[in-house]
Amino acid sequence: MTDRPTPPARPALVTRLTERFGLRAPIVSAPMAMAAGGRLAAAVSRAGGLGFIGGGYGDAAWIEAQMAEAGNVAVGCGLITWALERREAEAPGLFEWVLARSPAGVFLSFGDPAPFAARARAAGVPVFVQVQSLCGAREALAAGADVIVAQGTEAGGHGATRGTMSLVPEVVDAVGDRAIVLAAGGIADGRGLAAALMLGADGVLVGTRFWAAEEALVAPGFQAAAVAADGDRTLRSSLPDIARGLDWPAPYTIRTLRNGWTGQWEGVPGGPASDAARAAYASAVAEGDAERAPAIAGEAVGLIHAVEPAEAIVARMAEEAREALARW
Amino acid sequence: MTDRPTPPARPALVTRLTERFGLRAPIVSAPMAMAAGGRLAAAVSRAGGLGFIGGGYGDAAWIEAQMAEAGNVAVGCGLITWALERREAEAPGLFEWVLARSPAGVFLSFGDPAPFAARARAAGVPVFVQVQSLCGAREALAAGADVIVAQGTEAGGHGATRGTMSLVPEVVDAVGDRAIVLAAGGIADGRGLAAALMLGADGVLVGTRFWAAEEALVAPGFQAAAVAADGDRTLRSSLPDIARGLDWPAPYTIRTLRNGWTGQWEGVPGGPASDAARAAYASAVAEGDAERAPAIAGEAVGLIHAVEPAEAIVARMAEEAREALARW
Repeated sequence: MTDRPTPPARPALVTRLTERFGLRAPIVSAPMAMAAGGRLAAAVSRAGGLGFIGGGYGDAAWIEAQMAEAGNVAVGCGLITWALERREAEAPGLFEWVLARSPAGVFLSFGDPAPFAARARAAGVPVFVQVQSLCGAREALAAGADVIVAQGTEAGGHGATRGTMSLVPEVVDAVGDRAIVLAAGGIADGRGLAAALMLGADGVLVGTRFWAAEEALVAPGFQAAAVAADGDRTLRSSLPDIARGLDWPAPYTIRTLRNGWTGQWEGVPGGPASDAARAAYASAVAEGDAERAPAIAGEAVGLIHAVEPAEAIVARMAEEAREALARW
Repeated sequence: MTDRPTPPARPALVTRLTERFGLRAPIVSAPMAMAAGGRLAAAVSRAGGLGFIGGGYGDAAWIEAQMAEAGNVAVGCGLITWALERREAEAPGLFEWVLARSPAGVFLSFGDPAPFAARARAAGVPVFVQVQSLCGAREALAAGADVIVAQGTEAGGHGATRGTMSLVPEVVDAVGDRAIVLAAGGIADGRGLAAALMLGADGVLVGTRFWAAEEALVAPGFQAAAVAADGDRTLRSSLPDIARGLDWPAPYTIRTLRNGWTGQWEGVPGGPASDAARAAYASAVAEGDAERAPAIAGEAVGLIHAVEPAEAIVARMAEEAREALARW
């Protein structure tokens, strides 16, 4: 720390997002299912961003443990909307239980947010809705989303087909002052953050960069594969979902690195659906074997060259963005 | 016009591109095959950008007519590299003939640029090479490209799969000071231009926005369909290439609007390859029937709301970019 004040030419990254949530940087970490635990989310929030726990398919015990891990740091919780809908239809209660923990926000991705958004708003919990199209943004707006995340196809993990570069300004135009808009997909450094602000977003949602943070619940073998890969080496497919027996609805696919396993199964009718293929995949995941199961990462993987603490990532992204903006 | 000087807070959009080519705005119009004629290219150059004629598959008579149309305004000429390679193998001469006209640049897309780049450099003609991957950028650099255009999948017309948002900074990092880098794909307004500058690009290559310019050689029916469409309504496919009998190599596909015709053929084995299907497509194109042949447009189509003169487009993009930058 230094006593010298920041030069006035260096813009403060103040947006509707930072003001609404009291952040020092307009950076939100993605609720990556099972990879974004309480330690990562809390580290992002402590660094001045907003961290999310990746509640994914809704394992209450795991979510509870991760919320405990975050302690009294304000973090949000993400859930996969279509999985939540099925779970609530069978055994209601998870969503109310999450809301009762007063998270900094609930983050709904991949499905109809309307029923859950209304309940979250009634509970006073801010609602983040991730969308992959202009149509999705309109639905999120109608559902009463506080924050709409426009996710481009570059993103790691599940997503769809539109690119970040034009999706974000088109969503910004459609949303106006009715919701906060974040850009997601392909953003791993301060250049991407500054670009997102130029496109009219209020901040960024960052996945892969935090997936490769020290605090992420990701096996070192997968992180090492991601650090070594360039951005040409990813693939959107349904292969990991088939291998896990997860019944993901259209149009969602999952972006991973290409590896020996994806090369083996790409184009094979039915994919890795046999019991043997599923068992092999599960054991590779358990062992962190990045050649027999692919690292789940986005195209921004080519901008990531080391596994680092989340705090350093937040600080550098903000600093790089300020530098890029100040240069003009 | 006003006598008041521009306030100093408003950044001039000076980059390596504008300095090298003497431009007033870092905006280059894409050499869209047969759509970007001499009138469009000259209008872009007169407005302070750099215009390209879309020489496409290499029809010398058409190129000559369009160069004449551009008059003594400095414009460049684009060619489809794999088509040029086949043509030169059969009947050499087109490329030398283009170089002898001293265009402001030659623009090589979709294929190995090495043999042509060397000849252009020997002739003192600046070489633009468009790439869709980090690997392509490295090849362009090795070939001696002066300008490397990193084209994301959002782009209209031919392209590949990587998104603009992370491809551009990854190419910028790989290229360093060895070439000028432009961003392409999903950019149709000044927000996209400002974002590209934040990503480290020296400017932008803009297709769809100029395809919907008054000067473009595009039937009004297709332009009207594009103006009416949002960015969700596009598709990357090989359907138009099949219908035209064009043997495009992998990995290139062509982004168009979705319409009745794409809906009819999507997923049909072999696609519109019959004589009848090809004849129907050709007549729809000739008639400008946007329901029986698709408009060739990118995802940025959702940011385009009117057909306008190219000069107005260049001026507004530059002004919007300055505004977006000055806001920070």
